[in-house]
Amino acid sequence: MMSGAVNMKTSELQYRSLIRDELQEVQAYLLHPVPNMPPPLSEAIKELINSGGKRLRPALTILSTYICGADVVQAIPLAAAIEMLHTATLIHDDLIDNARVRRGAKTLNACWSPSTTVLAGDVVFAWAAKLAAQTQNLYLMKRFSETLEVICYGELNQMFYGLGVLPTVTTYYERIYAKTGSLFALTTEAGGILARYSEAQVQQLHRFGMLLGRAFQIVDDILDFMSDEDTLGKPVGSDLRHGLITLPVLHYVQTFPGDTRISQVLQRTATEETYQSLIEDLHHSDAAEWAMTQAQEDVRQALEILYGYPPTPYRHAMEEIAHFSIQRGY
Amino acid sequence: MMSGAVNMKTSELQYRSLIRDELQEVQAYLLHPVPNMPPPLSEAIKELINSGGKRLRPALTILSTYICGADVVQAIPLAAAIEMLHTATLIHDDLIDNARVRRGAKTLNACWSPSTTVLAGDVVFAWAAKLAAQTQNLYLMKRFSETLEVICYGELNQMFYGLGVLPTVTTYYERIYAKTGSLFALTTEAGGILARYSEAQVQQLHRFGMLLGRAFQIVDDILDFMSDEDTLGKPVGSDLRHGLITLPVLHYVQTFPGDTRISQVLQRTATEETYQSLIEDLHHSDAAEWAMTQAQEDVRQALEILYGYPPTPYRHAMEEIAHFSIQRGY
Repeated sequence: MMSGAVNMKTSELQYRSLIRDELQEVQAYLLHPVPNMPPPLSEAIKELINSGGKRLRPALTILSTYICGADVVQAIPLAAAIEMLHTATLIHDDLIDNARVRRGAKTLNACWSPSTTVLAGDVVFAWAAKLAAQTQNLYLMKRFSETLEVICYGELNQMFYGLGVLPTVTTYYERIYAKTGSLFALTTEAGGILARYSEAQVQQLHRFGMLLGRAFQIVDDILDFMSDEDTLGKPVGSDLRHGLITLPVLHYVQTFPGDTRISQVLQRTATEETYQSLIEDLHHSDAAEWAMTQAQEDVRQALEILYGYPPTPYRHAMEEIAHFSIQRGY
Repeated sequence: MMSGAVNMKTSELQYRSLIRDELQEVQAYLLHPVPNMPPPLSEAIKELINSGGKRLRPALTILSTYICGADVVQAIPLAAAIEMLHTATLIHDDLIDNARVRRGAKTLNACWSPSTTVLAGDVVFAWAAKLAAQTQNLYLMKRFSETLEVICYGELNQMFYGLGVLPTVTTYYERIYAKTGSLFALTTEAGGILARYSEAQVQQLHRFGMLLGRAFQIVDDILDFMSDEDTLGKPVGSDLRHGLITLPVLHYVQTFPGDTRISQVLQRTATEETYQSLIEDLHHSDAAEWAMTQAQEDVRQALEILYGYPPTPYRHAMEEIAHFSIQRGY
């Protein structure tokens, strides 16, 4: 993606073989048969779930459970619940953003009416809550609901106060915590909660996941304009086209404060030509590299926390995911 | 409403004084402050919650807990969770049905964009799940999620297979179980679950609530065309206008199988004149009375179950709600 960077591929990551059985159990939960639902819709939802090949959130949940020495039996339905919650938010997000393509496939809202898509998301929330209840851990259930709350608040605040205005770096970080960091943090604190760690230890694990999620989202925001449509599985520059100013673009704005195209992006008045030229100029600027430095610093801090745990294969797999989160091309 | 019927008023029901303190605690949960959410939206949601004056579902939850001799402390957050879940489904339903008025006030979707309304419903789901987690009862959490699932399946099946077709009586009953009966059933079985009753006893309490909810919904479906806009807080004949054939109309169709206006309702090609004339003819037919007989039979069977419990003031209040569900004008 950037000069000198070596892209890692999910298929080469060792966590996939290390916790293959556990991830298969998660998969069984995710693709459970749904007898009472219209088959065409349940098939479409399952296709969407199936397309999330990385299964990073389930992997983080299971690895954090092993790292903390807790019983993985409870972690498996939780891992599935978290992936399901993630899927539900994607369904509603795509509807809200009117996104037509995700992971190279048509979104639910591209195939079904808005009403059906709203209800499809609701059903997946219900599945997520049902799976979360199977963890047999009330504190985790509470954290699960709180995380959904944070995700929704983040989107609503963006919708109410974020449109048409240049965000501050703080606002950007708040937004991506709500969008990605909060759920990543839940996956990594889960192990600590199941292992009945102290509140301070759980907080530290939360911070680990938050940093990981933040790095992951920053890289997503870089790839949004640095990658290509085939790799992304969606159009290049989607964020800009939605009037969304991400960290690399914020840095670009600070470097070129007089660039009037940014106001056009914020006002949603930019033409296709403007988007293209801005994306090209972003490529030639240090925006991506600067943002990548921030993501690398997050991963460095995350790894510092991780190194406090015994050097088991599970910890090594988690380290690998941390590196992957910033060395990926998709 | 119908000749000879005496309408009961919620304000005259004794449950309101009997469990006043408990309902006030529920209210405190329902109207908790929400610091992280855009204030205009949280105010609008609270207004909607506040307009649900009857609080039938919370009352049923608390009364069933007292009747079964369980600890009411856990029942209070559950009662709030159930009311919150009900509110979340109303928010998404109004969006889906493009309803502009509910309980005499503008719906959320009439005031906010579809995107905001989707997220507003999601937030209320999150609040509901958070409250449900406070019951400290995993089985109840599971039942809570399953009920949300049933509600969604009901709507999706109606959307996929119910439009444009005359339903059978069985399909009608399935639909109103999903829509109303399932949540009523959860309120009444809650007491049994908290009291650690046997599965058979919990099943019986579920049946009690299901029958009550069914009667309640049949009366709702009667009032939809027998009442007036001021009392309903929404336009008369909303169901017909949405192509929805309810139990009284099904009876009318069986009595007058040749009435071509029904096909127009199903095909959504009916004119305002057609709706008006059909509503008038429904008034003059025995449709409402016949459907009311079915609701009365449901309440009779429900009371039979209730009479198996000791004759405490709580049971009497529950009996009163059962009577109210069919003797109300709104």
